[in-house]
Amino acid sequence: MDKLHEECGIFGIWRQECGPVAELSYYALYALQHRGQEGCGIAVNKEGQVSVHKNLGLVRDVFHEGEIQRLGEGNMAVAHVRYGTTGSGKLANVQPLVIDHLKGTMVLAHNGNLTNDAILREKLEKEGCIFHTTSDSEVIAYMITRNRLSCPSMEEAVEKTMAQIEGAYSLILMTRDLLLAVRDPWGFRPLCIGLLKDGGYVFASEDCALAAIGAKFVRDVEPGEIVTVKEGKLESIRTYCNKEKKALCVFELIYFARPDSTIDTISVHNARLRAGAFLALEHPAQADVVIGVPDSGIDSAIGYSRQSGIPYGIGFIKNKYIGRTFIQPGQSNREDLVRIKLNPVSSTVKDKRVILIDDSIVRGTTSRRIVRLLREAGAKEVHFRSSAPKFLYPCFFGTDIDSSEDLFAYKYTDVQMREMLDVDSLGFLSVENVTKLCDHELCGGFCTACFSGEYPVRRPETHEKDRYVQGASDEQ
Amino acid sequence: MDKLHEECGIFGIWRQECGPVAELSYYALYALQHRGQEGCGIAVNKEGQVSVHKNLGLVRDVFHEGEIQRLGEGNMAVAHVRYGTTGSGKLANVQPLVIDHLKGTMVLAHNGNLTNDAILREKLEKEGCIFHTTSDSEVIAYMITRNRLSCPSMEEAVEKTMAQIEGAYSLILMTRDLLLAVRDPWGFRPLCIGLLKDGGYVFASEDCALAAIGAKFVRDVEPGEIVTVKEGKLESIRTYCNKEKKALCVFELIYFARPDSTIDTISVHNARLRAGAFLALEHPAQADVVIGVPDSGIDSAIGYSRQSGIPYGIGFIKNKYIGRTFIQPGQSNREDLVRIKLNPVSSTVKDKRVILIDDSIVRGTTSRRIVRLLREAGAKEVHFRSSAPKFLYPCFFGTDIDSSEDLFAYKYTDVQMREMLDVDSLGFLSVENVTKLCDHELCGGFCTACFSGEYPVRRPETHEKDRYVQGASDEQ
Amino acid sequence: MDKLHEECGIFGIWRQECGPVAELSYYALYALQHRGQEGCGIAVNKEGQVSVHKNLGLVRDVFHEGEIQRLGEGNMAVAHVRYGTTGSGKLANVQPLVIDHLKGTMVLAHNGNLTNDAILREKLEKEGCIFHTTSDSEVIAYMITRNRLSCPSMEEAVEKTMAQIEGAYSLILMTRDLLLAVRDPWGFRPLCIGLLKDGGYVFASEDCALAAIGAKFVRDVEPGEIVTVKEGKLESIRTYCNKEKKALCVFELIYFARPDSTIDTISVHNARLRAGAFLALEHPAQADVVIGVPDSGIDSAIGYSRQSGIPYGIGFIKNKYIGRTFIQPGQSNREDLVRIKLNPVSSTVKDKRVILIDDSIVRGTTSRRIVRLLREAGAKEVHFRSSAPKFLYPCFFGTDIDSSEDLFAYKYTDVQMREMLDVDSLGFLSVENVTKLCDHELCGGFCTACFSGEYPVRRPETHEKDRYVQGASDEQ
Amino acid sequence: MDKLHEECGIFGIWRQECGPVAELSYYALYALQHRGQEGCGIAVNKEGQVSVHKNLGLVRDVFHEGEIQRLGEGNMAVAHVRYGTTGSGKLANVQPLVIDHLKGTMVLAHNGNLTNDAILREKLEKEGCIFHTTSDSEVIAYMITRNRLSCPSMEEAVEKTMAQIEGAYSLILMTRDLLLAVRDPWGFRPLCIGLLKDGGYVFASEDCALAAIGAKFVRDVEPGEIVTVKEGKLESIRTYCNKEKKALCVFELIYFARPDSTIDTISVHNARLRAGAFLALEHPAQADVVIGVPDSGIDSAIGYSRQSGIPYGIGFIKNKYIGRTFIQPGQSNREDLVRIKLNPVSSTVKDKRVILIDDSIVRGTTSRRIVRLLREAGAKEVHFRSSAPKFLYPCFFGTDIDSSEDLFAYKYTDVQMREMLDVDSLGFLSVENVTKLCDHELCGGFCTACFSGEYPVRRPETHEKDRYVQGASDEQ
Repeated sequence: MDKLHEECGIFGIWRQECGPVAELSYYALYALQHRGQEGCGIAVNKEGQVSVHKNLGLVRDVFHEGEIQRLGEGNMAVAHVRYGTTGSGKLANVQPLVIDHLKGTMVLAHNGNLTNDAILREKLEKEGCIFHTTSDSEVIAYMITRNRLSCPSMEEAVEKTMAQIEGAYSLILMTRDLLLAVRDPWGFRPLCIGLLKDGGYVFASEDCALAAIGAKFVRDVEPGEIVTVKEGKLESIRTYCNKEKKALCVFELIYFARPDSTIDTISVHNARLRAGAFLALEHPAQADVVIGVPDSGIDSAIGYSRQSGIPYGIGFIKNKYIGRTFIQPGQSNREDLVRIKLNPVSSTVKDKRVILIDDSIVRGTTSRRIVRLLREAGAKEVHFRSSAPKFLYPCFFGTDIDSSEDLFAYKYTDVQMREMLDVDSLGFLSVENVTKLCDHELCGGFCTACFSGEYPVRRPETHEKDRYVQGASDEQ
Repeated sequence: MDKLHEECGIFGIWRQECGPVAELSYYALYALQHRGQEGCGIAVNKEGQVSVHKNLGLVRDVFHEGEIQRLGEGNMAVAHVRYGTTGSGKLANVQPLVIDHLKGTMVLAHNGNLTNDAILREKLEKEGCIFHTTSDSEVIAYMITRNRLSCPSMEEAVEKTMAQIEGAYSLILMTRDLLLAVRDPWGFRPLCIGLLKDGGYVFASEDCALAAIGAKFVRDVEPGEIVTVKEGKLESIRTYCNKEKKALCVFELIYFARPDSTIDTISVHNARLRAGAFLALEHPAQADVVIGVPDSGIDSAIGYSRQSGIPYGIGFIKNKYIGRTFIQPGQSNREDLVRIKLNPVSSTVKDKRVILIDDSIVRGTTSRRIVRLLREAGAKEVHFRSSAPKFLYPCFFGTDIDSSEDLFAYKYTDVQMREMLDVDSLGFLSVENVTKLCDHELCGGFCTACFSGEYPVRRPETHEKDRYVQGASDEQ
Repeated sequence: MDKLHEECGIFGIWRQECGPVAELSYYALYALQHRGQEGCGIAVNKEGQVSVHKNLGLVRDVFHEGEIQRLGEGNMAVAHVRYGTTGSGKLANVQPLVIDHLKGTMVLAHNGNLTNDAILREKLEKEGCIFHTTSDSEVIAYMITRNRLSCPSMEEAVEKTMAQIEGAYSLILMTRDLLLAVRDPWGFRPLCIGLLKDGGYVFASEDCALAAIGAKFVRDVEPGEIVTVKEGKLESIRTYCNKEKKALCVFELIYFARPDSTIDTISVHNARLRAGAFLALEHPAQADVVIGVPDSGIDSAIGYSRQSGIPYGIGFIKNKYIGRTFIQPGQSNREDLVRIKLNPVSSTVKDKRVILIDDSIVRGTTSRRIVRLLREAGAKEVHFRSSAPKFLYPCFFGTDIDSSEDLFAYKYTDVQMREMLDVDSLGFLSVENVTKLCDHELCGGFCTACFSGEYPVRRPETHEKDRYVQGASDEQ
Repeated sequence: MDKLHEECGIFGIWRQECGPVAELSYYALYALQHRGQEGCGIAVNKEGQVSVHKNLGLVRDVFHEGEIQRLGEGNMAVAHVRYGTTGSGKLANVQPLVIDHLKGTMVLAHNGNLTNDAILREKLEKEGCIFHTTSDSEVIAYMITRNRLSCPSMEEAVEKTMAQIEGAYSLILMTRDLLLAVRDPWGFRPLCIGLLKDGGYVFASEDCALAAIGAKFVRDVEPGEIVTVKEGKLESIRTYCNKEKKALCVFELIYFARPDSTIDTISVHNARLRAGAFLALEHPAQADVVIGVPDSGIDSAIGYSRQSGIPYGIGFIKNKYIGRTFIQPGQSNREDLVRIKLNPVSSTVKDKRVILIDDSIVRGTTSRRIVRLLREAGAKEVHFRSSAPKFLYPCFFGTDIDSSEDLFAYKYTDVQMREMLDVDSLGFLSVENVTKLCDHELCGGFCTACFSGEYPVRRPETHEKDRYVQGASDEQ
């Protein structure tokens, strides 16, 4: 299905005494799996010795009992799930990165995307650096370790690096005796801090991973903040950049994050209910039932229903058994067989005027098929509502919209879109209201660049993704 | 999680010309996977030559591209997903059964459970029969092939067998040139007929499997009816027993079947909405939100909400990545880690009076944990409603309630149950109303034996399940 | 490579107390793996409860630590490796067979082939029996369990069955409290008895399996003998048939058995040395070096070298890493790439007159390629010697020569064969001398039917293999 | 079994036109598998685009049809099999290395071990370099790419690097349009050049890999020589170091290489026959039979037999089915169960005086067990001969003798060794004669450091292996 993809979820854990850090990381990765389904890994630190296991695949494919046992107990661990954009789906890019440098071993997990990656990489290569991966995460690793040569501590090396790199990054970094979390000055990607019941700290992309391991939410890491755990103490370093305007990716609220998570004090589920309510206000329709495309349209559909008074219903059953090994039907049967994945509940929609809520429309192909399913199931009218505004601009901060070219709303007029989707009406949440998904004052605001074209930081001059799309089809 | 389990889902396909019957069976099994997740198989008939592949595991584990290709094209196929009760989870029991007998090769898929299995099996053994499986399906295979020796046709052999076997059975049977479907005279388990777009017929446990392959629903197989497809013609034989009282398992509507299916003209989704509405009428409560335990409590929760006017909300997020390889947390962490599987959405339930709908309570352990999750998430009151009546009696017709002993409602009084679950109120749908889940006249009625103790056919004298629970822990 | 295949190896173990019978069976199967590489299985009996694990594949593929642990400890076990002829490579045929009948559970492992299988099977089918497999072993299981109905003991049921079945069979049979081994009256296939160090008995196809588990060789099971272990006592029943002429398959000595085994008091290695010596006497040649095709031509080559005085040399290196996953090279490269499997040692053969010993010539294709390798490596002359006589007749006793048609020596004259193989001379061991491979008096003698056409028992009228080659390509 | 291990085998291929270079590399790796069984990989270059697949495991485990197809066709490929010493068995170390640097992508395969690795690595780290692997191969990659910044061509960068690195290295290097092979100035590890039938060149560690793909042997790469293939032309650059003394690892001849290979014009099989003959001259014994420990003692045993006139016999059968999944028997059974792997042929040794040849004695544990097997099989006398001299010193050039401490011959006197092995006599090939295994004049000579302590290049000051044995037990 044509959905946007987040590139990563990250997790780190610190304990005073050796314990099952690999096992806890494993459960946390299950909770973060929705953020990246292409590869995953866990690196365990036992008194300075680092063991790592990572591979392409879901957590359930990569980690079995044996792998967790072999990783063994430890004091710290860093873990990662990854999506990975086109052309980069190779094993070498799976994180956490484990690298040796002059000061020892460093483990790095990264969520986000640099905008000056290409410039920094070329500079490093000119100085004789070699790269094993095509990811910007390796550039960050280089910058930190080079700065570390002239800085008295890892914390200062990270701080110096933050002045050199631009773009979106939430990082977790592990050395022999230090666990460090950092979030870029704009706060594009989420990152939070948790407290283990029996002492010790954890960092995670979303607090649903804290719940999964029985840890208590402490607070979010702030934009531009470095947080360290060393000898059991949590310390914070606010860098030069913490006055900047905040730019949390608003699509985290609309689609990427899990509804039971709270990001920067915003309940994701609430934000989606509000999106539905705004949609009902902006784009009302006379109808008999409101349904959502599972799973991510459900919450907004309930919000729409509550605001409009039109009953909420179950419109589709999604097949939950389909995974990587699913054999795609041949071309001739493709249209029919979309029902394997998503089947309409005819008693809900037959002879009804239906309001259909999805989180977004990217290329339009899936939306078209879904509408056709409703029509075939007997829906009299279909009113399509998208809880994201129109996608019009590329994203350089960690999702896979490379260019405007393939974007449905960029290519077609409203009339064309309505005709192509075969809907009776079509409405997108306005960019103005998308910034109001939070029901309280959020310091700074959201990044809405993909909808508005207003980029919080300057865009890369040449798009660094291009280099590898052309240059490598590695599939290690 | 302590849920009741259906034992099987079955599927059969007939085409005039050779075609991708294995591939279509594969998609149908994905749609029927919820009926059995322990093992599955597909047998293909190509001009009389039968190829079969089956194994323990989900469809996604058992069938990859290679297996479907090796099965190849064919005129007919029979497929099966299986749950299997304790002690019988061995490979030999995975269906379809493929057996050779005097008249050729017969392939059999069975959903249900005989009640005179033990008597028939002993009789057959006394005549020198050997058994490779512990399942009653092999008994049926024996009865049919033995009757076939003295009957002029397979249809008559099946009819004769129906006079000898008692209990629940929906069967699909394939010979060299015949596809045959039959449903027991009480109609315990569902079975329906579909028409392929390019000609040919299919049989399936539920019509969601028809949708998955683009087939059109024709009608249900009637209780006591034999339906055959031979040389492209669909024919029906009504047996002596078709005047009997109908006894569709009501739990098919409450839990087993998929909400997008229609069984004996009853929309499963509608039946669940009605269950919720009846619950709201029978067991009202003053509350702020109605939530359902995903996935099977959702529909009834919406029904309760609509009837009561109390808003419907998303109470839990279920982790959809957990599968067979999931490592169970150690005892000490088990309580905390239930949140890996099911995490409450605190913005929905915090400081709220919550009505919680689940499809049923079997042993009570899971229900207790779910209530605790809500309490910890800040719910002020929890009012538990079960859309099934109290389970009090064993089932002999294909689900895994072996005895009354472990049943929560059998062991405890209402007060004890409320205390053990730590709920503010507790309500079960009444047996009277459970028979009214259908909104129109259903000929005959439902089997409600597990709630009422009123068995449509006589109970087996000694419980045949016992023999194998004690006698074999095969794990081939 | 075109080699004849043995169909099976069998193993059984009895211990007074529960112990690691699965683990010991596992090691025994490794030692018997050369007798069958298509599938294998182990069934464990723990105080009457039978657990079984079996699958297609080598022992190393089918059994890992988990499978052995799950089988657990027990008092008895029966194990099997299988080759399986064309058309029958399906999972259902993998042994041991585990069947339930009136008197309980019976486990059966069979090496050999019945000659009146088809007649018995038809008779059973007429009485209403159903078959899950295409193997004659299931016919034997039926016969025994049916006879058991009228016999006071399993021993007597087996004895009665022996009067009804004809052909080659070495069987191991396990019931609740009995382990039983039996060898057909002609002794076609080997079977021996061993004593465990800490008490208990084992049966195995070859004594190399006894060595593998530290058991002591006791004696061979005699043709027509039933041996039982019950309550720790070994007992023997000589049946009516033990006066018959003995007919051990001579190809067991030439190729099937492992050189370190001793069969019916004949050292297999010695028999092969004698074959080489006879060849040197019957077919001398002026040459510089004697080489053997690895692995089965090596022993005879040493025998030839010792008798002739011509030095023995290493002629080929065989790649020992090639297994089931090996990708066959495309047609164009096939000729070149035979060297991946077998590469000549040029320093041994260059500019030399070479005597090349192989165990046999079946279709001739591999022999031709091997000679070409030697020519390309610079051999001046190649004198080919086969330590088996010419294959001229089909075998009905458990190997895969179905008919004369494909046999090289049947199709071509001596001159043609020499030309086709491109050899300077060609010699086969004479049928007369093949019966002298034993250096002491062997009671009764060998079956040499495939060379001589003299069958110890009457041939089947229609070849029962045909039925399934045509009727089923099952690949479960 | 306690054997020394070679660390690697390497292979490279260049073709004018796109073709099945992955498939040919795959066959070549099968032929080189004996040089490294821990991991393997293939990198394919299709007009500048590099695809790679590599993993831990044997070729048969890592590469199936799908992987070869996904690698696709190409102009060039580089492939590698790896053993890897303790502590370094992690995925990141599996080769070929694929790295990006300023001038593009470079692929590197390395066999050998640097002696100044630690010094260079520290220097690089001080300059801010980061390391993903613990192998010296990454150091070489860094040196070459850094030199490339200031050199006009890759050839000159390699030449400059050769002046900086010390120790053993045979390398194959691939860039966009260049395939380059280089051998260190001492020629520790073998490397040869082959010509494909349809044009194009290959490089391989041993010429048995040429035979496997139908390529013709051209010549060995000379010590200190750089050979390039570019635009179809083979060119040679002799570096400053080609006057140096040659130091081919003599253990390549005794054990590492395949007997059908020819290394630096020496037939490996002949060298082993000569080792056996020298042993017969240096350490004669009165005996009845000469046997070899399979597989590597066989050739020398034949050499001993020919020289001494004592008959050669088959002493042991080695189980060829044992692989990575083999479950090691528990301690109590270990002694008995050595026969699973290696079973004596009692008819060869019973009541005989036996001369037993093995390629070497490392820790002595296996040798002791093998002698015990012979005693138990009835050998009257056992005379042990090792075709390698006594191991007394560590190796720094690519095998896994880390220190003298564990070496049997270093720890014990001759009398102690005889007693511990329980042999009637014991003889090692002399260091003097080990240098005469070649039957013609070899320019320069062999490295015999592990026997003599005379190192061709200076030893590393601190042993760089230590760093990682302590610092990392990565098991990614």
